[in-house]
Amino acid sequence: MHIDIQFLPFSPDPSTLSRRTIVVIDVLRATSVIVHAISQGALEIIPVSTVEEAFQMAKNFPPGTTLLGGERGSKKIEGFDLGNSPREYIAEKVKGKRVILTTTNGTKAFHSVSSGREVIAGSFFNIGAIVRRCLDLGQDLLFFPSGDEGRFSLEDTVCGGMLIDRIAREEEGIELTDASRTARILYQRFKDNLVEAFKLSCHGNDLIAKGFEDDLAYCAQIDITDIVPTFWDGVIRAH
Amino acid sequence: MHIDIQFLPFSPDPSTLSRRTIVVIDVLRATSVIVHAISQGALEIIPVSTVEEAFQMAKNFPPGTTLLGGERGSKKIEGFDLGNSPREYIAEKVKGKRVILTTTNGTKAFHSVSSGREVIAGSFFNIGAIVRRCLDLGQDLLFFPSGDEGRFSLEDTVCGGMLIDRIAREEEGIELTDASRTARILYQRFKDNLVEAFKLSCHGNDLIAKGFEDDLAYCAQIDITDIVPTFWDGVIRAH
Repeated sequence: MHIDIQFLPFSPDPSTLSRRTIVVIDVLRATSVIVHAISQGALEIIPVSTVEEAFQMAKNFPPGTTLLGGERGSKKIEGFDLGNSPREYIAEKVKGKRVILTTTNGTKAFHSVSSGREVIAGSFFNIGAIVRRCLDLGQDLLFFPSGDEGRFSLEDTVCGGMLIDRIAREEEGIELTDASRTARILYQRFKDNLVEAFKLSCHGNDLIAKGFEDDLAYCAQIDITDIVPTFWDGVIRAH
Repeated sequence: MHIDIQFLPFSPDPSTLSRRTIVVIDVLRATSVIVHAISQGALEIIPVSTVEEAFQMAKNFPPGTTLLGGERGSKKIEGFDLGNSPREYIAEKVKGKRVILTTTNGTKAFHSVSSGREVIAGSFFNIGAIVRRCLDLGQDLLFFPSGDEGRFSLEDTVCGGMLIDRIAREEEGIELTDASRTARILYQRFKDNLVEAFKLSCHGNDLIAKGFEDDLAYCAQIDITDIVPTFWDGVIRAH
């Protein structure tokens, strides 16, 4: 099994994706929101790129079935039901509901890799479940950190590195690239203190400045659910 | 001073380059060759992208003044004078000569960042001199690993990380990005054994397989020269 991680979030060549399992990672906070919402009973998540698209998409569904969630500049969008903190996505609000989600980096990333053989949402919340699913699928793997407005993202790469570390310990004959080896080393540096990595990262700093510091410790929780959200035909549902 | 490192070697937006010092890094082996050749008395290096361009360029100069150097598939090119091992670029061969150089990654990288305010060739050979030059210039910095055929390169990023580490220790108030912080962590992992990093890297492995293992230990030598090769108007000369 060949494991790579793409450090910058541009659209990969679709021909290289069709044979691989892709894990999209945006721990601060889109994929943490997605995993959390589905674990709390949300029916499905529809990731869209723009605010306008979110409002348009909502018109396709009966009133009361659908919530609008997401952020711009890390803050809740005017007219939306929910922001981009996983702590908001609890059963009382999301159970049985569809969530249309738009965020700066994460929701776009799913569309960038939509031609992947299987496209999964990864976060620290569901590390163990992702590892088992990737090993069950047995395909080559590409981790896809969503980045920080096109730039390399420390926290997403630490999460990718943790997945790589766990898979490499469980499976013989894993083939790592220079990038996946580097992500693993980065994870090993922060494995005893993920929040330290978040606080060093540009995006973590921005969240603290905007009053979302509590989300950092929340998003650093490991293995709190076995949900494997999978993106297919524009929609994310539990596998 | 803001320090960034670009993990994938695509051409950056020229407008972001014009205010920055750029350090191109291809330790295995183009920038090691460039630094070594100039330290041994080569007059200048002309980096070109293709073999054909190298032969054409050579016709512009009087016979006996110019050497052709470089590689394809790590091996010396037919009809060329020198390959891509820094050990070949010694005074007896290169002193007073112009070298037209074409390699798979490194020589292209100089053209990708040619709009930089100052474009420098970095390697382990001239780490200390590069640090002093960057501090003297006082501009924001972009390290530009040449990559491995478009992919992320471990060994070049370790070298970038060493430069970042030294600059951050010498200068107050350095602003690091997630990428430059990661490169520094990667360097700290390998600082006691650079050859280990080379041997783990895809490109280092390829060089070993092709019989160039001795180049790994050679290219891992730190601070053997004070030369700062600078790229200007298509030509690299000592600053």
